[in-house]
Amino acid sequence: MSAGWFRRRFLPEAPLPAPQPPVPRASPVPYRRPRFLRGSASSPADAASGRRDCRPVRSPARGRTLPWNAGYAEIINAEKSEFNEDQAACGKLCIRRCEFGVEEDQEWLSLCPGEFLTGHYWALFDGHGGPAAAILAANTLHSCLRRQLEAVVEGLVATQPPMHLSGCCVCTSDPQFVEEKGIRTEDLVIGALENAFQECDDVIGRELEASGQVGGCTALVAVSLQGKLYVANAGDSRAILVRRDEIRPLSSELTPETERQRIQQLAFVYPELLAGEFTRLEFPRRLKGDDLGQKVLFRDHHMNGWSYKRVEKPDLKYPLIHGQGRQARLLGTLAVSRGLGDHQLRVLDTNIQLKPFLLSVPQVTVLDMDQLTLQEEDVVVMATDGLWDVLSNEQVARLVRSFLPGNREDPHRFSELAKMLIHSTQGKDSATGDGQVSYDDVSVFVIPLFSQGRADHGH
Amino acid sequence: MSAGWFRRRFLPEAPLPAPQPPVPRASPVPYRRPRFLRGSASSPADAASGRRDCRPVRSPARGRTLPWNAGYAEIINAEKSEFNEDQAACGKLCIRRCEFGVEEDQEWLSLCPGEFLTGHYWALFDGHGGPAAAILAANTLHSCLRRQLEAVVEGLVATQPPMHLSGCCVCTSDPQFVEEKGIRTEDLVIGALENAFQECDDVIGRELEASGQVGGCTALVAVSLQGKLYVANAGDSRAILVRRDEIRPLSSELTPETERQRIQQLAFVYPELLAGEFTRLEFPRRLKGDDLGQKVLFRDHHMNGWSYKRVEKPDLKYPLIHGQGRQARLLGTLAVSRGLGDHQLRVLDTNIQLKPFLLSVPQVTVLDMDQLTLQEEDVVVMATDGLWDVLSNEQVARLVRSFLPGNREDPHRFSELAKMLIHSTQGKDSATGDGQVSYDDVSVFVIPLFSQGRADHGH
Repeated sequence: MSAGWFRRRFLPEAPLPAPQPPVPRASPVPYRRPRFLRGSASSPADAASGRRDCRPVRSPARGRTLPWNAGYAEIINAEKSEFNEDQAACGKLCIRRCEFGVEEDQEWLSLCPGEFLTGHYWALFDGHGGPAAAILAANTLHSCLRRQLEAVVEGLVATQPPMHLSGCCVCTSDPQFVEEKGIRTEDLVIGALENAFQECDDVIGRELEASGQVGGCTALVAVSLQGKLYVANAGDSRAILVRRDEIRPLSSELTPETERQRIQQLAFVYPELLAGEFTRLEFPRRLKGDDLGQKVLFRDHHMNGWSYKRVEKPDLKYPLIHGQGRQARLLGTLAVSRGLGDHQLRVLDTNIQLKPFLLSVPQVTVLDMDQLTLQEEDVVVMATDGLWDVLSNEQVARLVRSFLPGNREDPHRFSELAKMLIHSTQGKDSATGDGQVSYDDVSVFVIPLFSQGRADHGH
Repeated sequence: MSAGWFRRRFLPEAPLPAPQPPVPRASPVPYRRPRFLRGSASSPADAASGRRDCRPVRSPARGRTLPWNAGYAEIINAEKSEFNEDQAACGKLCIRRCEFGVEEDQEWLSLCPGEFLTGHYWALFDGHGGPAAAILAANTLHSCLRRQLEAVVEGLVATQPPMHLSGCCVCTSDPQFVEEKGIRTEDLVIGALENAFQECDDVIGRELEASGQVGGCTALVAVSLQGKLYVANAGDSRAILVRRDEIRPLSSELTPETERQRIQQLAFVYPELLAGEFTRLEFPRRLKGDDLGQKVLFRDHHMNGWSYKRVEKPDLKYPLIHGQGRQARLLGTLAVSRGLGDHQLRVLDTNIQLKPFLLSVPQVTVLDMDQLTLQEEDVVVMATDGLWDVLSNEQVARLVRSFLPGNREDPHRFSELAKMLIHSTQGKDSATGDGQVSYDDVSVFVIPLFSQGRADHGH
C-alpha cells in the first residue's frame, strides 16, 4: 500500500461517479455455519419458556474435537438479520519450511514432518451488512496467515531473526544491529499477523466485488506457536485470560471511540474525505442552531483533553464520530473502526466512503505461556461483542470459575461452558444478577491452556 | 491549525525556494539563566580534582524559596556548546476569574482574591540549535498557560465542566451528555496545557523569525492545581514520583523511536515531505548496495511487528528515522519528535523541513495527590535527559531515599538533593556504582509533595 495508491483510490481529481451497485461476475458467497458444527444439534436457549425453536444455541457435536479440546458455542441474533453474521474457524497451522534460499515463486519443498512448524488457530468474525465478508474471512484468513508465516519461517526457527532471510550476513555486524533493535522471533509472528489481515482484506475486497456482494466483519484471532499465544484483534470482539486468581485482557476494542484521534487526524489531513457533510470535531452532543455563537466543549485530533470553542456554522454538521460507548458511530454508519471488507461501504445516500477511515491491521498481544505456571482451569475466553455487551470480564470469570471445577470429568466441558456463557446472555441466568439480554449474534471459544500449551512447542 | 494551513505551509505547489537565513527585524533574544538563580553561587562539580572553574553546579541562593520549597540545580555541558541550552522556570499561577458572560476581548475584572484560582508551575526546557527557543519558552509558556486556563476557568470551578461556558443550557439534557462522555474538570486542564504548548510554539516561531534566530527546545512542565499535579511533556526530559515504596513514571519520552509509527504515517500520507531523499521504512541498519535483491528485516508505518522485504534501490536511501535508543535521529538531524520551535530547521544542505514531523502538543499525565497518603519524603524529580542518560529511575530513587531522611532540618535540602543528583552524573559518586559521566547540560527540579500538595487546593 502506497500513498499514491491511497490517493488514487480515495482522492480522485474529478468528483467520484455516483456509486454503482457492483456487477456480479461470480456466484455469491454461499451462506454456511462453521465446518466444525456439522452434525451438531441445537439446544434451545429458551427451553423454560417453551419457545423451543427461537434462538437455539449451537455447539460442536459430541465426539468432534477442536484444537486443544477447545469449546465453542453460538447463538443467532433475535431476527436482527436473517443470517447469523458471526463466523468462526479453527484448525491446525502447518507451516512448511522451504529449502534454504529457494525463491518464493518456486514450489515449496515438503520436507519431512519433523521440519514443519505447527501451531493452532482459532478465529471469530463478526459480520455487518450481510454475512459474506465474515464467511470469506473464515475461509481465507488462516491461509493468508500460513503463507505469511511460511515466508518468514527461517527467521522463526532461529534464536533471533537474521537481518537477511538467507541467513548470509552482508555485514559482519548484522546480528548486532538486530540485537540492538531488540527484534525477537515473536515480532515476525506479529508482522505475519499484520500482513495476513491486510492480505485477507484485499482478497475479501476482490471476492465481494466479483460476486456483487457487500459487507464487512471484525476479526479476532488466537494463534499458538512455539509456546506463545498471539491474539490479533481488529474490531470490537474481545479475548481474556481467566485463571484462578487473575483476569487478563488479551485484546482491546478498536472502535470509533477508542480510535478517535487516528480518525480525526485523517480527516484533518484529507478534509475532502468528509465532502463538506461532516464535522471532524467532537462535541458532547450534536449541535443545533441555538448553540451558534455559544462556547461549547469540543475536542480535535491533537487533544486528549477538552476545551471550549465558539460555535460556528460548520460545527452544526453531523459529527465524524457521534455517540458514546456502544452507540458511537463512524460517519453515522459503523460501530467499529477496524476489520475486513467494507470496500464498497458509503454513507447512506452519499458518495462518502467509510473504507479510508478503517484499518484492517490488527492489534496483537502476546501471551508467553512458558512464563505462566499453567493450571488445569486456565482458559482463554474469546467472544464477539454480543457477549461483552451483557457480561463483564468479572462476570465471565466468575462463571468460568464456578463451572469448571465441578465438571472435570466431562470431555466436552469447554463447549458446555461456552453454552453456559451464552445462556447467561439471555437474561435467564441468576449468575449475572441483572438478567440483561443480548439480542446480537454471540459466538464464544473457550480455549484451555493447560497441557495443550506445551504441545505446540517444537517444530 | 487546519489542513489547509498545513498544506500551504509545508506542501506548496511550486518547489520551495532555497532556505534563506531569516532577516532580523528585532534584537536577538538575550542569553540568561533562570531568574531564581540570581545571587546564587556556583559550587564546583569537580572540587576534588582542583579544577574549580570547570562545569560548576548552580542552585538558588540560600534564602530564595521556590514554590513548595522545591529544590533546583543545574550544570552546564562540557563545552558542547558555549551556552547552557537548558532553561528553567517556576512560579505561582494566578488564574483570574472573569465576570460571568464577559467577552474575552474585554478587560479582565480583578475580583476579590478569594475568586482567584491559584496553582504552581515548574518547567524545564532543553534547547538545541542555540539557546533562544528555550529562553523564549521559559519567558512565555506560563503566560500562555495562564491565558488558556483563564479562558476555561468557569468550567474549572464547576463540579463538572458545563457543555456551555456561559453555564446556560441550550438543551436540558446537556449535563447528561457531558456526564456520558465522562468529561471531568481535569480534562479542561489537560486541554489548556495542550493548547498552551501550541500557542507558545507559535509565539516562539514568530519571535525567532523576527530576531533572525533559530533553534528549538523540549518542554517538561509540572502544574499543581486543585489538588492535582499535571505533568505535560513534549520531548525527552522525564519526571518521576519517588516515594518510600514506589517509583512512578509521570512522563514518557517522545522521540523519533517512540513515535516511529506517527512519523512514518505522515511520510506515507505526504511522501513529498521526504523530497525523494529519504526512505520511510525502518531497517535494522542503513542498507548498502550489497543488500540489493536480498530479503531484509523491515517495518512500515502500520506495523508493530517486523517482516522481510526484497531490497530495491529506493530502500538504500537514508532512513527517515535512523539509529537506536539515544542515537535515534529524525531525518538524520533531531533526537526528539516533540517540542517547541524549530520552525526554520531543515536537513543540512537540503530544503527538507523537520517541522511537519514535530508536534508541539504534550502528553499529559495527572497525579491525584488527594488519592495518595503523602509522606514527608515524597518528591517529584523532574530532569532533562542529561540526568536520565546516566542515572536510572531506580538509582535516582535510591539517592533520594538515602539523602532526605538524614537532612530533615536543612530548609534547602531539596536543592541540596538536586545538586547531589547532578554530582552523581559526573562520575564521582559511588552511589551509581558505574561512575558514568553526562557531558550534556543537566537541570533538575525536586518538588516535595507533602503538605504543599494541600496548599493549592481552594480558590
